[in-house]
Amino acid sequence: MNRVEVEKKVLSENDRIAADLRRRFKEHGVLCLNLISSPGAGKTSLLERTLEGFPSAERVALLTGDIQTDNDATRLARAGFPVKQITTGGACHLDARMIERALEGWRLEDLDLLLIENVGNLVCPSSYDLGEEAKIVVLSVAEGEDKPLKYPSIFFKSVLLVLNKVDLLPYVPFDIARAREYARRVHPGMEIVEVSCTTGQGLDDWRAWLEKRRAASRIKVTA
Amino acid sequence: MNRVEVEKKVLSENDRIAADLRRRFKEHGVLCLNLISSPGAGKTSLLERTLEGFPSAERVALLTGDIQTDNDATRLARAGFPVKQITTGGACHLDARMIERALEGWRLEDLDLLLIENVGNLVCPSSYDLGEEAKIVVLSVAEGEDKPLKYPSIFFKSVLLVLNKVDLLPYVPFDIARAREYARRVHPGMEIVEVSCTTGQGLDDWRAWLEKRRAASRIKVTA
Repeated sequence: MNRVEVEKKVLSENDRIAADLRRRFKEHGVLCLNLISSPGAGKTSLLERTLEGFPSAERVALLTGDIQTDNDATRLARAGFPVKQITTGGACHLDARMIERALEGWRLEDLDLLLIENVGNLVCPSSYDLGEEAKIVVLSVAEGEDKPLKYPSIFFKSVLLVLNKVDLLPYVPFDIARAREYARRVHPGMEIVEVSCTTGQGLDDWRAWLEKRRAASRIKVTA
Repeated sequence: MNRVEVEKKVLSENDRIAADLRRRFKEHGVLCLNLISSPGAGKTSLLERTLEGFPSAERVALLTGDIQTDNDATRLARAGFPVKQITTGGACHLDARMIERALEGWRLEDLDLLLIENVGNLVCPSSYDLGEEAKIVVLSVAEGEDKPLKYPSIFFKSVLLVLNKVDLLPYVPFDIARAREYARRVHPGMEIVEVSCTTGQGLDDWRAWLEKRRAASRIKVTA
């Protein structure tokens, strides 16, 4: 087998497990979201701020992926909700089997919302379906507005772009109108929210988006 | 062949080509440097500022890697030195064969310095030897000081850490002493320069580092 054949086999095995996860999430009414960004774009901070807004009875759990360290799980665990760290030990992305294993011991019937923080990488995670209902891409304004054009796959596959660190806009050369235009050039109709996890600006828009998705995922269609 | 075997084969093929490139660079006295960072950490800006400082007769050329677009080559070409864009079309890193092909048509005897800007990715490029004499990792202070611990491979393999965007330090929660400590925990003795490509702060330190490496690479040891 050559490299392309092996990659196809790995991806099709991944897709099989992801489809099974997706079926389980739907069966139990769990909205699963997969957050993807460059290192340091602020996924963990966004999740921290999200958890802060939840009552303690909220049926939410988190999986957080990193190559090394369990720093993110430690940060996220402070909010009191179930968190597991997936340490990939070198792999540049999460895959469906890692999610399947990490879920062992958790009862999906106890959850409404599963938030997955992928490894910091704007490229590879976009190829791996984790069984999520939607991918979300987080882009920090410190990274430059050209990123949707340079890394189109993840912008094309994500339903929502979270433009983070907008408190830095006065200090960085970032054209937010152009960033929005580039994102929608790659992905027409893409939803976009602008937030700052430092000042709290825009977090209500993010929470409103999340609640809208949660409400939609609660609707069960039966034949 | 399973996936690990295929990856080993790909890497050993890459290493063979990289070794050949390295031999050619040494033979012609070309210092080749491989710049690696997350998307948007400022590799292109650092290279732009570096080129600005060179006289027009400088024997320098650049290869710049991106998944899509030739924006970076367009930016870098303004300085008037030879530049080629390598568009990987999905691949999350440059490999030695891409470098070998991109060099076709350039005479190495006309060069002293070859600067390679890798795809924006803090993970995968660290596994691919491009025949460079040294890897350089660029980290923006907007990314957070924990990155050396979370992405240790690239910090371990790079001889120099360029801490970029230090002009943003007043506006971001980044502990620069801790960043230096983390980098040296992963890579004892790692060289570090702090720069801002916006204000120019620290660029003299970077240029001094570069000139020191260039002087060292000019020394030819003959038996």
